[in-house]
Amino acid sequence: MSTEDATFPESPLNRFHAVIPAGGVGTRLWPLSRAAAPKFLHDLTGSGSTLLRATYDRLEPLAGERVLVVTGEAHRAAVCRQLPEVGDDELVLESEPKDSGAAIGLAAAILHRRDPETIMGSFAADQVISPDDLFQDTVREAIYTAATGKIVTIGIKPTHPSTGFGYIRSGEALNVEGAPNALAVAEFVEKPSQEVANKYVEAGDYVWNAGMFVAPVALMLQHLEANQPELFKGLQEIAEAWDTPQRAEVTARVWPTLPKIAIDYAVAEPAAAAGDVAVVPGTFRWDDVGDFAAIGRLNNAGDVDEVTVLGEGARVFAENASGVVVSDTKRVIALIGIKDVVIVDTPDALLVTTKEHAQLVKGTVDALKASGDTDVL
Amino acid sequence: MSTEDATFPESPLNRFHAVIPAGGVGTRLWPLSRAAAPKFLHDLTGSGSTLLRATYDRLEPLAGERVLVVTGEAHRAAVCRQLPEVGDDELVLESEPKDSGAAIGLAAAILHRRDPETIMGSFAADQVISPDDLFQDTVREAIYTAATGKIVTIGIKPTHPSTGFGYIRSGEALNVEGAPNALAVAEFVEKPSQEVANKYVEAGDYVWNAGMFVAPVALMLQHLEANQPELFKGLQEIAEAWDTPQRAEVTARVWPTLPKIAIDYAVAEPAAAAGDVAVVPGTFRWDDVGDFAAIGRLNNAGDVDEVTVLGEGARVFAENASGVVVSDTKRVIALIGIKDVVIVDTPDALLVTTKEHAQLVKGTVDALKASGDTDVL
Repeated sequence: MSTEDATFPESPLNRFHAVIPAGGVGTRLWPLSRAAAPKFLHDLTGSGSTLLRATYDRLEPLAGERVLVVTGEAHRAAVCRQLPEVGDDELVLESEPKDSGAAIGLAAAILHRRDPETIMGSFAADQVISPDDLFQDTVREAIYTAATGKIVTIGIKPTHPSTGFGYIRSGEALNVEGAPNALAVAEFVEKPSQEVANKYVEAGDYVWNAGMFVAPVALMLQHLEANQPELFKGLQEIAEAWDTPQRAEVTARVWPTLPKIAIDYAVAEPAAAAGDVAVVPGTFRWDDVGDFAAIGRLNNAGDVDEVTVLGEGARVFAENASGVVVSDTKRVIALIGIKDVVIVDTPDALLVTTKEHAQLVKGTVDALKASGDTDVL
Repeated sequence: MSTEDATFPESPLNRFHAVIPAGGVGTRLWPLSRAAAPKFLHDLTGSGSTLLRATYDRLEPLAGERVLVVTGEAHRAAVCRQLPEVGDDELVLESEPKDSGAAIGLAAAILHRRDPETIMGSFAADQVISPDDLFQDTVREAIYTAATGKIVTIGIKPTHPSTGFGYIRSGEALNVEGAPNALAVAEFVEKPSQEVANKYVEAGDYVWNAGMFVAPVALMLQHLEANQPELFKGLQEIAEAWDTPQRAEVTARVWPTLPKIAIDYAVAEPAAAAGDVAVVPGTFRWDDVGDFAAIGRLNNAGDVDEVTVLGEGARVFAENASGVVVSDTKRVIALIGIKDVVIVDTPDALLVTTKEHAQLVKGTVDALKASGDTDVL
């Protein structure tokens, strides 16, 4: 396998088209991430790039300008500001959220109509990955494997027995040319208990399911039709109208009627049962930035004392303190004698919690919703 | 003793003139209290009144409009807004802070020139006292005792062996008519160690020195002259010019030259050594609101879960949290899984600490000063 392969017209690398589903508010990152400014529009690593921009830049060496972005209509302007090179043809706007089955399925259907030989790769807009070259090597292997007629998930070698992710049990080596690490998938397993997670990591043949996959669009649609015929039919109808003047009319009529289902249930799991799924384990660093504790892990350049500080122009004074401060204002923030704290300071809402309790932020967002304080959600 | 005594022209109660020194930033209450908005201009008890206004209202039944306020020139407008009934004659403005010796000494000198028979009572503007009637009963006893030729401190019966206050050791009963609780003062003692404080409280004859005292102005000046002749001379010069057109000129010339010394050292301690000091122990509740932990003690009406909330229109959501939130903004503040926390949220500065570390705020203010971040001080 080498990048030179792409110079051969018949290389599967030339059939690659990246898809970036940019959805999901990231409730566990409230009040930084919220409906009007979801997680993927933030720079959560202090890199100077939003997660969305970093995702695009990571894919560009593989896909060139063949990067389709699927996002909510409400985020159109923000997404275009982040990705000025994405033209109208590469932007799919959802009038209402319909879960990943519809979002990724529509991308597959549109790409299939434009070129049925396309190999798509789907990569969420709100994950943190490094280094880029290791990621790109893994995706190339996945493309070669997909070209043999597989839906190829990219698994992550576990760094610890996490209970926050689903796992993929790998099977025998597939011996694909250009993809020495490709393995068959034995099964997908849901988020495990701690005990079970420990066993998975010990066993060595389990990887995290990071929700990234590469697949021929034709194969995607074939499984979608078999397992979710109603969803498939609706998406086909929209895709047929997509590059015509009827797009708006058909989409407005059909999209709201589509069933809500995750792509895992609609395609990946039934395809795995049918023996059509492979996995390429990735050794790059991967984080889904699931809560503010993750932000502490991902940042250290801006440390003040033992406090990780994220935010341009942050003015943090720490004395005998540790934890994470995300500053979305220019206020002075003073921390005294407080450990493992998480502080998120935004113009209209302030969160103070601990790393240990960071996962509970979702409950607070629900409480705010219930109390009618939706102005800050 | 009864309040009716004031109807007799010869009653010492008719000679009473209250003095409120309104100075001191209250650094331990940063960022709520700061140079431009010191402690006494805040409502720290959720009563709806600032500490200054509450101090005035507590004295008004004793002093009527005979209440002299000594404050910094910078606070003139704010003080007048709080106390519209205080006329120019009752307002003493310091061009620069000179400690309590000069501030209270000047009040004594001015009042003495206006009426040498005056009995003054000095009460800091930033303390919390309740109930008012018990306080007033104690001050009346102090006035009767002062009329016998004493500088009378008002001691506070200790509720716990505090190491944060000086103590007064009381001596024999003075048997003053109208002041059954008046005692001689044996000695003033500085803030003790914990061990010593425990002994004081066990002994039973120690009270906290709350810095409140009642005394004939003539006796005050006599001790000031004996112990601080330079300060006395300067204050006399200003007082002579005070109610004349020369006030501004003389004050501008003399005030900056005055020595800085606390009234305790300038008058109270030498007077005690001379046997001229008495104490009336007060049984009212008293708090000097020395830090944010005190604010937790003094407020509970606005509790959300186990969080004490201070601030008009505060929007606090607490889950499995305890502590104190002072909200000077209208932001939503969410606390999750954090105990004994202290959060002070102001438009340009945020403090997050614990009740245990609340006393360390002063150090942070010093650090901010050193770093040049004086815009928030």
